[in-house]
This record gives sequence, structure tokens and C-alpha cells, in this order.
Amino acid sequence: MRAPSHSTVPIGPGTGALAIGVDVGGTKVVAGLVDVDGAVLVTSRRDTPGHDVVAVQETIAALVEELVEQAGSQRVQAVGVGAAGLVSADGDVVLFSPHLAWRHEGLRAGLERRLTRPVLVENDANGAAWAEWRFGAGRGETRLLCVTVGTGIGGGLVLDGRLERGRHGLAAEFGHMVLVPGGFPCECGNRGCWEQYASGNALGRRARELVAAGVPAAGVMLALAGGEPAAVVGTLVTQAARDGNTAARGLLAEVGTWLGLGLANLGAALDPGTVVVGGGVSAAGELLLGPARQTLSRNLTGRGYRPLMTVVAAGLGPVAGVVGVADLARRSLRRMKS
Amino acid sequence: MRAPSHSTVPIGPGTGALAIGVDVGGTKVVAGLVDVDGAVLVTSRRDTPGHDVVAVQETIAALVEELVEQAGSQRVQAVGVGAAGLVSADGDVVLFSPHLAWRHEGLRAGLERRLTRPVLVENDANGAAWAEWRFGAGRGETRLLCVTVGTGIGGGLVLDGRLERGRHGLAAEFGHMVLVPGGFPCECGNRGCWEQYASGNALGRRARELVAAGVPAAGVMLALAGGEPAAVVGTLVTQAARDGNTAARGLLAEVGTWLGLGLANLGAALDPGTVVVGGGVSAAGELLLGPARQTLSRNLTGRGYRPLMTVVAAGLGPVAGVVGVADLARRSLRRMKS
Repeated sequence: MRAPSHSTVPIGPGTGALAIGVDVGGTKVVAGLVDVDGAVLVTSRRDTPGHDVVAVQETIAALVEELVEQAGSQRVQAVGVGAAGLVSADGDVVLFSPHLAWRHEGLRAGLERRLTRPVLVENDANGAAWAEWRFGAGRGETRLLCVTVGTGIGGGLVLDGRLERGRHGLAAEFGHMVLVPGGFPCECGNRGCWEQYASGNALGRRARELVAAGVPAAGVMLALAGGEPAAVVGTLVTQAARDGNTAARGLLAEVGTWLGLGLANLGAALDPGTVVVGGGVSAAGELLLGPARQTLSRNLTGRGYRPLMTVVAAGLGPVAGVVGVADLARRSLRRMKS
Repeated sequence: MRAPSHSTVPIGPGTGALAIGVDVGGTKVVAGLVDVDGAVLVTSRRDTPGHDVVAVQETIAALVEELVEQAGSQRVQAVGVGAAGLVSADGDVVLFSPHLAWRHEGLRAGLERRLTRPVLVENDANGAAWAEWRFGAGRGETRLLCVTVGTGIGGGLVLDGRLERGRHGLAAEFGHMVLVPGGFPCECGNRGCWEQYASGNALGRRARELVAAGVPAAGVMLALAGGEPAAVVGTLVTQAARDGNTAARGLLAEVGTWLGLGLANLGAALDPGTVVVGGGVSAAGELLLGPARQTLSRNLTGRGYRPLMTVVAAGLGPVAGVVGVADLARRSLRRMKS
């Protein structure tokens, strides 16, 4: 794993070409300078300015300009933006974002006008999947499935070294496959989406249920949240589980079981060789992946008669999205020039 | 749709190269002589000899030899076999079949020894999907998803003109994606598989429930079954629905709704441009596809902000599998020679 540098010191002079990747999530916008080997030289971040689309675009542009200034304009070859939403096949429009205000937003043209350089826009989880295939835990895999388990579930698919975007650019929205018809309501408008059961949100919700029920073992999580039940969120569950709290470990096993069930479905549909699990919740490591693998091996159709897919933790950590969209932008530019 | 000829009259002399396709299902084995344009010149069929793997192989070989004799040995370029089961990536082994006795069966080598010519073995639904892309309702589609709704659900995926087989040859087993955790038991060993809710088996089971409950409108289906409740099967439901029976139409709408739910999940995962629905149950036409489309449009993630996929009935009818494996065998042979 390449740990991101959080230095804001200007990077030294150099000749290597760089690309900028920007990852726009529901709570924060992270930008990074990325070299041709996928190493992140410097990152910069700001809070996502709520549901104001103009302010979000302005934040992206300001972060890019900041990094351009640090690197020197002539060294920055390309700019890629990863958006938590449905991005059209041509990359021009963010069609819809469940967690942000984008609705048919012409993000690319807006940014290109503002930055006066070409910009690639891609779904954030597609970017992360691409990074894991190019530089991370998915290298060499001809059928790679990437699942980003954070607040929700993002997905990406790299088949034969090609990012599979689907007919309209909207493939790999695995988190919104319905696993429980009529189940929990989802921000997307459906009920029972996979991400309502296997995500940081699900971890937090289940933990708050235990706290509300007065389950003694859940007291540790409540304490970590400063005694504030509403502040019991997924990251605290992971923290408590790592400290050995049985209730928290039980919740991670529960979420891992749902993760494994969904992976069994994707295994039936896509037969990947490797599944890379990234995102914030994957920080729980084997506490999450162990139960997921067990459930997968018990539920994959044809089990016992077929090879299983390998389930591994992501290799690039939280910068995967930044690395991926930077690399995709660089490649896209090369294609335009050739 | 090209209707298959059931003639057993020897076909006339000719110069066009032909291929033989054999579709091995749970109840019957169908073989056909197929020309380079995907037209089926003649077919021949036998009952599947139960769970005896040697007898199944013998049946396939006998049908092939029968057609070779009719066509003339030198005109038959290639032989393809579509198997209702998991076929390994190299086509050598049928790993598992829920409806037949194959367990790690070296079907290809056995047939090649018997027939003394190269044989291609492919999953039957993959063959049907390929046929629909080459000659049927999926022509010209860059992201084609094919769902074969018969006794169960088979699937195939053609991406950019390439049959997507997955890492181990086992992709597109859509019927065994779990849609209802803990739901109806499936022959595959899981519970709640999609095909337990959207298939001919599901139609029959639901109809028998109505009959057992003494629902008056279900009397028509019971009559079609000669008054024998156990003989009320999916095909009779379709027949009654076409005759206007409201109970039967309700059941097709129910199965269509489950079909649409599963398609919404596949839409989220794969973003196809076109979904071709084939298989026996698709004979119900709009009585099935109407409710499926309606459910799909209400459940596809991002609906209202994204293009919908088109859902169409298959173009080739029950010979799709035969046509597909014949064409795949021909292409495979061409690759071997070049």
C-alpha cells in the first residue's frame, strides 16, 4: 500500500510527467498529484460543500489549481475527476448522484472552461477499480471485480484490461442491486439495496440498534461516541472490533455475511477471478473479509464443482480513486493525441 | 424468427458448408444442421436418457451421426454442443449440472473420440445468447444480455461482440443469483434463487397452489391438465393466459414482476443496452414482458436520470441454442486453422 503524503510543501523540481486525480465524495473532496507509476506525491483535501453544485465545482477547480501551482503547470499532463454518481458514457454528464446534488450536471465542460485544460470525469468506484488493476491488489487479473465498501457500496469491473462501463457508462452499480425485496429504504429510491446491508451505514445503524436496546457489550461503542447514541457510526464499530469488543465483531461478521451473499450473486453473474474489497469498511480487514469469504464459499452456485474467486483487501487504500482517475485521464489524453 | 424444419427427409445436394449444433437439456436433446447464415436446415431430437451420463453422450453422438449422414460428411465443418450446466473455460469439462448428472464430466474428449472430429462444448444459454447477437434480436448491440426463461433461467452476455465467459467459463449464471435470501429451495443447493421465482417451474408451482386452494379461476388450468392437479405445469398456464384466463394472466404478471426485479439488478450491475428474453416462457410474449418492463422501469437504480435498457423477445425461438453452438464451433475451428 502506498500511503498518501499529506505534505503541503511544494514538491521539488523534476522532469517526470504528472497527472492530477480528484475524488469527490459525499463528505470530502480529495485531490492528488500522481506519477506514471501510480505513486501519490502530494494530496490536498476540502470538505464537500453540501448540496451546492456550483460550490462543488469551484472546490474541485481550486484543489486542481493548488496542485498545478505546486507541480508547475507544464508537468501536469492530465486531470481526472472521480464522481460519486452515475457518469454518462462520454464522461460529459453526471446523470445522478444519490449522495450529492448532481442531476444531469455538465461537470466536465464546466471544469474545462474554468481550468482551461482537458478533464476526464469518471465514476469514483470505476476509478478505484482501475487503480487496483493497474497498481494494486488486482494486478494481472483478467476478470477483476472491485467492491468499494464505504458509506455505501461502489463497484468497478476490469475485463481483459478494459474498464467495463456498460452501454451508457453506468455499469458496476453493485450497491444498488436489491438483495432484500421490500427491505430497508435506500437513498436511491429503492428498498433492500445491497449497500443497506453491507456498508459503513449498515454497521452504524445496527450498532445504534444495539445501543438503543441497551445491549451491555455495545457500551464500548457508545463510550467511543462520547456517550452520544447518534454519534455511533461505522468507523467506531471497526475501532471497537479491533479492540476486541465482541458486539462490534459480531456486527462486522454480520455485515461481512451480507457482503459475501452479494459477492456470491456477482460470482454467479460475472465469474471474476479476483474480488478486491476496498473502501473505509475494508480497514476492518479479516474481521470483515473472513465472514464474507465463508458466506461466499457456502453460497456460490456450483460450489464444490468450480473454482472459487479470490477475495482480497484493496492494495491502495483511500487514494485508489485519486490514482485511478489520474491514470485514466492520462491514458485518455494519449488516445486523443494519437 | 426462423422456424426449425422437422423434416427427416435427406437434404438435397449443395455446396454450402454446414455446422451441427446440439442442445442438451434436462428433458430432450435437439440437434440441427445450421448454415453460415444461422438458418436451421433440419433438426432431429430425442428424449434425454435420464441421469445416465454415458447414455447422454451416446444420444448426442447418435444425433450428430444421423445429421452427418444426411448432410454428407464433407459438408459438416464443425460440431458444437450446448450443455445445461457449468462448462470449464477451455470447454473440456462440464463441471456441474443442476438438472443433469454431469459432475466434472470430460464430455468433449468423449465425444471427439466417438465422433472422430473436433467438438466444441459450451453452456447452452451462452450458445443462445451468441445466436441472438449474431442472427437474432440482439444484432448490433454492443452490450447484450440474454436471459433464457424456461424450466429455470439461463443467461448469456455478449460484450463488444465477444461472448463473456468469465474467468473460469462460468459467467452469466443469472438464474442462481439469490433474490430472496432464505426463499424457495433450488436444485443448485441454494435458497431464493431468481429462477425459483421467474421461470416455468415457478409458473407451474404457483398455478398448482391456486388449484389446491380451490381458486375458481384456476379451474381452467386444471381442466387443461385433464383434471390432474400435479399435471398443471408452466406451459398450461401460458396456454390458459393466451385464452384469456385471468388467474393464469395474473400468474404470468407475477412471474414477469420477478423477472423485471432481477433485470433491474442486472441493469445496475451490467448496464446492458438490450436484454433479449428467450426460452419457453417467453412464448407468453407481452403477458410476461409487459409486467417485466414495468417493474424494471420502477426499480432500475437512477431511473428518471438514465437511459433504460430495451427488453425484447428473442428472435430465434427454441433453436437459438442449436444455432449458437453451431456458429461458435465453426468460428472456433477457423481460429484453430488460422
